[in-house]
Amino acid sequence: MSDLKLITKFEVADGFWGRYAGLVRDVVLPYQENALNDRIEDAEKSHCIENFRMAAEKLRTGKCDGEFYGMVFQDSDAAKWLEGAAYSLAQYPDAELERRCDEIIDLIGEAQHEDGYLNTYFTVKEPDKRWTNLHEAHELYCAGHMIEAAVAYAECTGKTKLLEIMRRMADHIYRHFIEEGAEGYPGHPEIELALMRLYRCTGEDKYRELALHFINVRGVNSDYYSQEKKRTPWSVWGFNPNNPIDKEYAQHAAPVRMQSKAVGHAVRAVYLYTGMADAALETGDNSLTDACKTLWNNITQCRMYVTGAIGSAYEGEAFTKDYHLPNDTAYAETCAAIGLIFFSNKMLYLERDGKYADVIERALYNCVLAGMQLDGTRFFYVNPLEVLPGISGQAQTHRHTLPVRPKWFACACCPPNVARLLSSISEYTWHTVSGKLFSNLYVGGTLDVSDMFGGKITLHTDYPYDNKVAYHFEPEGESMTVPLAIRIPAWSENTVIRLNNQAAEYEIRDGYAYLRGEFRDTDIVTVELDMTARKIYTSSKVSANTGKAAIERGPLIYCAEGVDNGDDVLSLSLKRGGAITVGEYLPGKLCGIRELYAEGYKEAEQKELYSYEAPAAEECTITLIPYYAWGNRGLNPMRVWIPEK
Amino acid sequence: MSDLKLITKFEVADGFWGRYAGLVRDVVLPYQENALNDRIEDAEKSHCIENFRMAAEKLRTGKCDGEFYGMVFQDSDAAKWLEGAAYSLAQYPDAELERRCDEIIDLIGEAQHEDGYLNTYFTVKEPDKRWTNLHEAHELYCAGHMIEAAVAYAECTGKTKLLEIMRRMADHIYRHFIEEGAEGYPGHPEIELALMRLYRCTGEDKYRELALHFINVRGVNSDYYSQEKKRTPWSVWGFNPNNPIDKEYAQHAAPVRMQSKAVGHAVRAVYLYTGMADAALETGDNSLTDACKTLWNNITQCRMYVTGAIGSAYEGEAFTKDYHLPNDTAYAETCAAIGLIFFSNKMLYLERDGKYADVIERALYNCVLAGMQLDGTRFFYVNPLEVLPGISGQAQTHRHTLPVRPKWFACACCPPNVARLLSSISEYTWHTVSGKLFSNLYVGGTLDVSDMFGGKITLHTDYPYDNKVAYHFEPEGESMTVPLAIRIPAWSENTVIRLNNQAAEYEIRDGYAYLRGEFRDTDIVTVELDMTARKIYTSSKVSANTGKAAIERGPLIYCAEGVDNGDDVLSLSLKRGGAITVGEYLPGKLCGIRELYAEGYKEAEQKELYSYEAPAAEECTITLIPYYAWGNRGLNPMRVWIPEK
Repeated sequence: MSDLKLITKFEVADGFWGRYAGLVRDVVLPYQENALNDRIEDAEKSHCIENFRMAAEKLRTGKCDGEFYGMVFQDSDAAKWLEGAAYSLAQYPDAELERRCDEIIDLIGEAQHEDGYLNTYFTVKEPDKRWTNLHEAHELYCAGHMIEAAVAYAECTGKTKLLEIMRRMADHIYRHFIEEGAEGYPGHPEIELALMRLYRCTGEDKYRELALHFINVRGVNSDYYSQEKKRTPWSVWGFNPNNPIDKEYAQHAAPVRMQSKAVGHAVRAVYLYTGMADAALETGDNSLTDACKTLWNNITQCRMYVTGAIGSAYEGEAFTKDYHLPNDTAYAETCAAIGLIFFSNKMLYLERDGKYADVIERALYNCVLAGMQLDGTRFFYVNPLEVLPGISGQAQTHRHTLPVRPKWFACACCPPNVARLLSSISEYTWHTVSGKLFSNLYVGGTLDVSDMFGGKITLHTDYPYDNKVAYHFEPEGESMTVPLAIRIPAWSENTVIRLNNQAAEYEIRDGYAYLRGEFRDTDIVTVELDMTARKIYTSSKVSANTGKAAIERGPLIYCAEGVDNGDDVLSLSLKRGGAITVGEYLPGKLCGIRELYAEGYKEAEQKELYSYEAPAAEECTITLIPYYAWGNRGLNPMRVWIPEK
Repeated sequence: MSDLKLITKFEVADGFWGRYAGLVRDVVLPYQENALNDRIEDAEKSHCIENFRMAAEKLRTGKCDGEFYGMVFQDSDAAKWLEGAAYSLAQYPDAELERRCDEIIDLIGEAQHEDGYLNTYFTVKEPDKRWTNLHEAHELYCAGHMIEAAVAYAECTGKTKLLEIMRRMADHIYRHFIEEGAEGYPGHPEIELALMRLYRCTGEDKYRELALHFINVRGVNSDYYSQEKKRTPWSVWGFNPNNPIDKEYAQHAAPVRMQSKAVGHAVRAVYLYTGMADAALETGDNSLTDACKTLWNNITQCRMYVTGAIGSAYEGEAFTKDYHLPNDTAYAETCAAIGLIFFSNKMLYLERDGKYADVIERALYNCVLAGMQLDGTRFFYVNPLEVLPGISGQAQTHRHTLPVRPKWFACACCPPNVARLLSSISEYTWHTVSGKLFSNLYVGGTLDVSDMFGGKITLHTDYPYDNKVAYHFEPEGESMTVPLAIRIPAWSENTVIRLNNQAAEYEIRDGYAYLRGEFRDTDIVTVELDMTARKIYTSSKVSANTGKAAIERGPLIYCAEGVDNGDDVLSLSLKRGGAITVGEYLPGKLCGIRELYAEGYKEAEQKELYSYEAPAAEECTITLIPYYAWGNRGLNPMRVWIPEK
């Protein structure tokens, strides 16, 4: 097992992430609990908990009233919610919430078959069809999410009931696929990364073996799904079994080590790569590491939006082709950006290169946060970089790019995924490996590393709006020895690191400043990041962004919304070489932001569709807000990439 | 009946249109005849003529071998080809071609039922289902095209056999829908405009009545198709009869006089509007005229590409929303641009405003001509304004935007539509109404108006590459009196009109110069158009074109192709205020063009996807070619709208 240690003893303090942690606790988790229990008015029904009740009843009595409702993977919504609740409980003990979680866990236990099998869709609706449709039926996907929840719940609360339930399910899967030699691999990857977590949590080798099995067999027989369809011709989604199967969609066109382009359904892709990277970390398998690097580079250098979003097309919720990054029709699913964070985090563990944390930060502060309304009650599944009222959400090609966040979704993968990510921010903030402590993100709060380094470290910051980050050391004894590696983001061109207001000694390597030495009680390491607001440009291979710039300050991508700019953003252009002014911190606006003000031009409205006159344009100041805060003030045009004149 | 007269006695001379007329005669018609007879290797099979053979055999013997093959509207391909052949025969008598046309007409006659019904799909495949699926089955559409062919063949060759066949079919339709009172209206409009032609050709009122009937009932019962599906639940396309029917797709959400936005399938829309405008012309129905004006304005002011293409989305081959004009994913079907020409031409007859001819010219010289390879053997169905190799034709969202013209299509509506349009260019070039002769397009050739104005007029020009157009008069007697109205395109800012090298007397009204007077044998009216190469800009409401300009000279939209610009067009930008130089006429390049050379910049290749440096750019000369000639030199990036710096 690698000597990587994840840090759970981190208490997020007030400030940017404190607000989100509180929001998850006070609003998001309760709201989503209500949604899973169908208690939200005017929202899509979930039926998720009810499905578990029905499965339990059927196992108890042999039958149940009513019908399974929802997606074939509806169980996973409860799993992701439980996982998020677990993380929240670790930070904010809440006996009542924990009791309700325990109740759901009891219910899940009751819905488990004696042989360990657990899946309400199959128990309630298709009891004879277990494991006959790996292509569509998401059994391994749901198992994976519930395993993640089980590990998180055990680690955060010390309670192992769900862990035992899911070990029995994992053992069931092991028997089926390893001992009984069943062929196949999951249509939607997730089980791989979950089994790696289960392995790390339990120390049980067979879970790692099973994860590696699914990784290794994937795409070796690239016709597996068509053979499966021929053998057991039933379909969850009503696919015509005679239609050819798109082998890119679920990343099985070739064995995973032969894959060099990120293709197909973007969430499936990054979940798979996360499992691969984690397996590489735990096995030292260089061929797997190399495949992960190739795929990560392909994503981040050819297929990623500036917001950290991935998946350019609604069709297949998928990656498309290199440099195809349309803004207004972007799919850019919230879950896919979350998956990219998972993948990048494993790559960071593997390689300790700040570029991975840069991508985590980009996806987190931009696409993922945009996925949730600031008040935590509405969610985006799709995160376009341009919104055109009258077209977005309405034209045939834009039905998916809703301009306002809906309350819930028939396919509700994203909301609980956001909740579990936001409540597990510590995992991305800190880790230790090879005896070093890595500070990856700037999240205010107190880290207890007494067991490893003999003390605590408190990080004070008003990041991402302020550029100063201070590490206060609190040794248990007189001093603590911490080999501390602080990530210096690539966007910070001039960074100043001081120890007690003196130049600190450190070495910069791969995006990290490596400090050495003992720290005493009053020692403070400060990092002053270069938060100059800057324009960012895209390679001209990306057609959608030619002649345009976006604006970034620190980790935040900014955008122009109509409400701040005379209700129109398409008429705006940036002035080449024009200044960008950073506004005061506005605590009352959009839950606290700084606006940016860019010198630009506003075109007069042109009456004709086409005209021979260059449109008249006046100098103007363009007001920009952080992308994550867009769409919180009603229907409104929005644009990230703005022409530059 | 209106006093509109279409002019058939116009002989296209050498030059731009002479080449096309020759190409249609020598290449396009023979090639398409081979295609209809399945004699083209490596191309999609047509089976069109074979379907007629099978239908004839079945009527003769009660059965036939083989199966109907192709689209439900496959018959219309033969109709459009016959119509094109008829126009060509009028210009270039060819006994052998005429003999083959007569043979096909004989075959069509043999495929007609005794009651006049004619449709090979129904005769061969679904003999019991006539008239039970107006929504999908294209019976009225096929009838309409064959009626058009019949009228054209009669007018061009004097032979009326096909006309008699199609009168019997029209009479059959009249009995079914008028006398027997069958409900419904065609899923794909076409019959309306065809019946108006049949009425004008035969003078038979019932055909006008029938056209008006289909126009007037459309959308009055907007649920007709769902009721039809319930009554006779069968589907040509495999639609689920329980799925709701999109009422915009076939323009039946409301009665036609209530429609104010051009919606749905673009070809259906403009064919419908063409019939409506023609009916308005023949009835003086102002409410119909007003609806046509509103729809035409909506198209040309909110939904038309600068190439005259329409239909922004592959999904439904359809119009989308106002100002939604994406370049790389444009559907922009060749047939839709042709339909826009039909519609605009009827509007021109109605209103005599040059703006309609401007749109005809824009669609004709740009989108329609681009629909055919310069050698006449390959065709585009879809005409994007930007081609990105590696993405176009390959990404999920770009499967329809092929970067190279295919040989033929399973749905082969466009190729014969181009043929019939190019061979009937005289219809758009000249017309007379209210005793005036209108010169709408500048097509070199000789017009014989002896019957109306006592002489001939020969137009000499090297248009569209040269700006001079000369009208030479050849009166039969000493002089001819011709009230001549010459269209002055909106793009020609400074136009000089002379009579025998002296300032001519004329009055400009609605885009036409109205000349008066007698012309003698040596009289020459010359028009010098202002063909300055100019940049054109789009309203900033069109997201795809913000910050960009296109370049136009005369009627031609230009584009940059990779082959002329170092294999890359996305790195190019135009210099704001930069000069555009008009090149020499190059007879050997792309069948004779002038290139344009624009001052611009070329960005250095940026290694990273995103970068904080404005990309380095060098001054360069951008070489542009006419849009219609793109894609004739292999796989190649192409761009019409180019950022301007």
